[in-house]
Amino acid sequence: MNQPSPAPAVELSERTLARASLGYLAEPGDPALGALLGICEPAEVLAAIRADMLPGTGPGCGDSPASRAALERAFGRWRIRLPKLPRDTDIAGACGDGIKLVGPEDPGWPGGLDQLGPARPYALWLRGNADLRSSCQRSVSMVGSRAATGYGAHVAGEIAADLGERGWTVVSGGAYGIDAAAHRGALATRGTTIAVLACGVDFPYPAGHADLFADIAAHGLVISEWPPGVRPARTRFLVRNRVIAALSCGTVIVEAGERSGALNTARHAAELGQPLMAVPGPVTSAQSAGCHRIIREWGASCVTSAADIIEMLSPLSATDARAPAAGQGPAAGRDPALPYDDLDADSARVLDAFPARGGAGTSTIAVDAGVDLDTVLRCLGMLAGYGFIERGDDGWRLRRPA
Amino acid sequence: MNQPSPAPAVELSERTLARASLGYLAEPGDPALGALLGICEPAEVLAAIRADMLPGTGPGCGDSPASRAALERAFGRWRIRLPKLPRDTDIAGACGDGIKLVGPEDPGWPGGLDQLGPARPYALWLRGNADLRSSCQRSVSMVGSRAATGYGAHVAGEIAADLGERGWTVVSGGAYGIDAAAHRGALATRGTTIAVLACGVDFPYPAGHADLFADIAAHGLVISEWPPGVRPARTRFLVRNRVIAALSCGTVIVEAGERSGALNTARHAAELGQPLMAVPGPVTSAQSAGCHRIIREWGASCVTSAADIIEMLSPLSATDARAPAAGQGPAAGRDPALPYDDLDADSARVLDAFPARGGAGTSTIAVDAGVDLDTVLRCLGMLAGYGFIERGDDGWRLRRPA
Repeated sequence: MNQPSPAPAVELSERTLARASLGYLAEPGDPALGALLGICEPAEVLAAIRADMLPGTGPGCGDSPASRAALERAFGRWRIRLPKLPRDTDIAGACGDGIKLVGPEDPGWPGGLDQLGPARPYALWLRGNADLRSSCQRSVSMVGSRAATGYGAHVAGEIAADLGERGWTVVSGGAYGIDAAAHRGALATRGTTIAVLACGVDFPYPAGHADLFADIAAHGLVISEWPPGVRPARTRFLVRNRVIAALSCGTVIVEAGERSGALNTARHAAELGQPLMAVPGPVTSAQSAGCHRIIREWGASCVTSAADIIEMLSPLSATDARAPAAGQGPAAGRDPALPYDDLDADSARVLDAFPARGGAGTSTIAVDAGVDLDTVLRCLGMLAGYGFIERGDDGWRLRRPA
Repeated sequence: MNQPSPAPAVELSERTLARASLGYLAEPGDPALGALLGICEPAEVLAAIRADMLPGTGPGCGDSPASRAALERAFGRWRIRLPKLPRDTDIAGACGDGIKLVGPEDPGWPGGLDQLGPARPYALWLRGNADLRSSCQRSVSMVGSRAATGYGAHVAGEIAADLGERGWTVVSGGAYGIDAAAHRGALATRGTTIAVLACGVDFPYPAGHADLFADIAAHGLVISEWPPGVRPARTRFLVRNRVIAALSCGTVIVEAGERSGALNTARHAAELGQPLMAVPGPVTSAQSAGCHRIIREWGASCVTSAADIIEMLSPLSATDARAPAAGQGPAAGRDPALPYDDLDADSARVLDAFPARGGAGTSTIAVDAGVDLDTVLRCLGMLAGYGFIERGDDGWRLRRPA
């Protein structure tokens, strides 16, 4: 990092550079930095850390003795890493050779990440040539157990291949087991796939996946919140999982034991109000126990195929092929073109609370609809899944008919 | 039937005898007979058929030309069988030797059947010594594919054995495959099991199950709406399925292909507002496709064990063992002793519509709550599953705390 670097292949904005610099100092998801970035420019925050001068007393910004003390502690831990902070030219130089940086103000930023609020990534490092934002427009996160069974790996691969064939991007975590089967399935049908790592995009972890990551970069993207060179750590996987959930239109769990990390990703999806799905398996298999539990207890949808998943995420386009025959049960006879009448009372109330134009935040909608946060999250996920609403940069908004 | 018969072992009421006689003339579930029995005494109906004199113009009883014509046609088809109608002494004589008759006015009648309204059985023939009414108090209907896989038969047997061990009665249809595995599982742990046949209780169908039915009768009950000697017919299985669903506290489907008859039983359970459950399996197995579909599309609960099933049917007794750990997901932290606040808006409205004392019918509750029939059925099933309400002889009613 001490040699003069060549000019960057892509123009980096000052903001994105400053955000990337902050990513060398603070761990992703640091609530103190998230709060600061909500009220200050990234360059101001960086300068304040360098100068060890806490920003003034704006709202949420050290305006009580307790939060001021928290900010002082945060400055302490960020400043420890200052000696290792590369120069701007070195950060810019790390881009090129298929590696890019993208920040929330850049056109390539995927809007889904903005749902994370203060926990939004500061910036993302990308390895590969696919366009992140457009790849995420029709995307499914598929994660599961590292200790997958043959059944789970087979099913993940088949479904991912089918999703890839139908033009859907498969997002996963690059781990052994279900993640790898999902990536490989998508690659098999030349689909786009995105691996979200808990280490630098140049760091092959697990080492056995170096070739897989090269394949993914060639046809999709390997992305990370951590700068190149950073090694994985246990806590980083958990922090990373929120990005897997937020990046896509919905999350599907394929095999998860009762304590699988995949359930952490599932929880993020549920908390974001994203459609959450799980693939069932034999009840005799411990690796399916987590899937069955989230279907039963969290209301995850039971999906068995790419068609099921696509129907969950864009039901109007998929219903033709899957409309139940008349008399086949309670769902029979539902008219997919007029689903409003089929909404439960809470979801209808939430939908009615949407502004006619522009977006609104989750809590605003909850207040306007007069429902609690758990309810609004459940309803938003359902309404998004059925195509009533969508996420935009300004929050949730009504979806305009095509 | 022409020899003089010995005196019956059990005293039969005139009503039950008349109902049993009607069961020789009309197929179970005949809507014309159900309507007549709603307004006339069974003996009056029998006398009218014998005399070929249609009853007068009471409400619902031939009071329009169209319904009068329907009743004339019904009389025609019932009278065809008059020559084969046994004498009362012969019907009474068929009882004894472990065979009994029970009618809706008898103390041994299971109240769940009254949910069926005009489709309620006229009477039931029982083979075995268990008490039908008390056996149904804590009971689960478990049905599924005849062409079961090894997986399905194994799981049905294990769950039924566990249910039997915990004192729950397993109700099924006596068929090959899942039904047989369910009966055998319950017998293995000396649980009570009830086979509901679509032929006479003395008619071994399938023939290979003659020994199984003898075992069931020895430890539980073989029951039927059809008199002894009647052979099975394709339509009788479908008519029979409503009894399997109505008899128990909830229905669980273990393996069902997309066109399995088990889904007909599932539909009856859903229409009755009974808790409906399904056991998942490999998505690669066609025999699990029906289970996955009713979980996804009909809202059937995904259950994997006897404990899951019992929790669905009496959650307060089972929650201790299954309360999710704090922070394990959206369901965490729910207080099972105060679940009212967790009800969705529709279910709360339905519960509020219940009379403080006594029972009410499904449609009365729907009207009082101001919700449609689909919604009230869904909510009643849910409220019953969570222990807020129960079925009584006078309809649905609030459940009194123990």
